[in-house]
Amino acid sequence: MANEKLTEQACSVARSASLIGDPWSLLIIREALAGNRRFSDFVEFTGAQPSVVSDRLKRLVAAGVLRSSQYQDHPPRNEYRLTPMGRALQPVLIALSNWGDEFLDNGHGAPLVYIHEGCGQPAHPQMTCTHCGDSVDAHSLRVIPGPGADPDNVARRVSHATRSAD
Amino acid sequence: MANEKLTEQACSVARSASLIGDPWSLLIIREALAGNRRFSDFVEFTGAQPSVVSDRLKRLVAAGVLRSSQYQDHPPRNEYRLTPMGRALQPVLIALSNWGDEFLDNGHGAPLVYIHEGCGQPAHPQMTCTHCGDSVDAHSLRVIPGPGADPDNVARRVSHATRSAD
Repeated sequence: MANEKLTEQACSVARSASLIGDPWSLLIIREALAGNRRFSDFVEFTGAQPSVVSDRLKRLVAAGVLRSSQYQDHPPRNEYRLTPMGRALQPVLIALSNWGDEFLDNGHGAPLVYIHEGCGQPAHPQMTCTHCGDSVDAHSLRVIPGPGADPDNVARRVSHATRSAD
Repeated sequence: MANEKLTEQACSVARSASLIGDPWSLLIIREALAGNRRFSDFVEFTGAQPSVVSDRLKRLVAAGVLRSSQYQDHPPRNEYRLTPMGRALQPVLIALSNWGDEFLDNGHGAPLVYIHEGCGQPAHPQMTCTHCGDSVDAHSLRVIPGPGADPDNVARRVSHATRSAD
C-alpha cells in the first residue's frame, strides 16, 4: 500500500492507488458509503479479518478518508465516518461497480442498481465530458501534461514516444 | 489479490477489486491505456520491480484484461495489449485520477489533463446520470438490489438497518 515509489510519482492515479488501491480498503469505503460506521459492521459486511479491518481503518483515518470518534466510553468504542475526501470516492466505487456489472456478473445481472435521487430513475452513472456532455471512454480521450506534471517524466515519455515511432 | 472471499461476494466492487485492486495492476493498466505494450516499458514507467510487473501481467492476462502476443522469436518476447474489457477500465482510472487531482496534488495542480477528442476541450470527466444528465455523487445516489443480488445478503442488510434504527 502507501509506498514511496507510488506517492512520489507525479500521477494522481498512483497517488490515489497508494492510499485506497487495495480490495479491503475499497470494501470498507463501500460500507461507509452505505452508512456503516462501526468496526463490527465493517467486519461483518466486508468479510475481512478483524485484524485487516483494524489495519485499514487506521490507514484510512491517517489518509484523511475517514474520521474516527468515540461513541462509547466503557469499553471505549470508536465509529468511523467518511470525510468529504472520503465521500468524494463515490465515483471510484461507481466505476469499479460498472466494470464488474459488465464483465464479472456471471450472467446474473447487476447485484445493485444506483437510483438518482434527483430524477428518481436508475442512474446507470457514466463518465461524461464536462464541456460538451458526451460520454467519454478510452477511445475519445487523450492526455496532455497539466500544471502539476513532472517535467522530467514528460521529457522521458516524449523521448520514448519518439523512439517507439522510429 | 484475487481472493475467494471477494469473488464470492455478490458485489461488483468486490469482484472488480479482486482483479485490479492493487496499485501496480492499476499502473500497468495506466501504461497500457497510454499505449505502452512491452515488459520493459511497464517496468520503466510504473517504477515496479520486474518480478512484480511479471506477476501482474500474468494475472491481468488470466483475468482477460490484457492479451499477450509474441512479437519477437529470438529471444522470445511478448507484448501486452488491452482487451475491450481492459479498455473499459478507463473510467476507473479517470475516477482515481480526479480524486488524486482534488486531494493529493500537493498544491501543484493536476499532473495531467484529459482532452476530449470529440469537442477538443479539456474533458474534466465527471459521473453523470444517464437518465437526466445531472452529475451524481454520494449524496444524490442510493442503491437498491439488482437482478444479480444475493437474497441472503439483502436480508442481512435489511435486518441490520432495522436493528440500527431501533
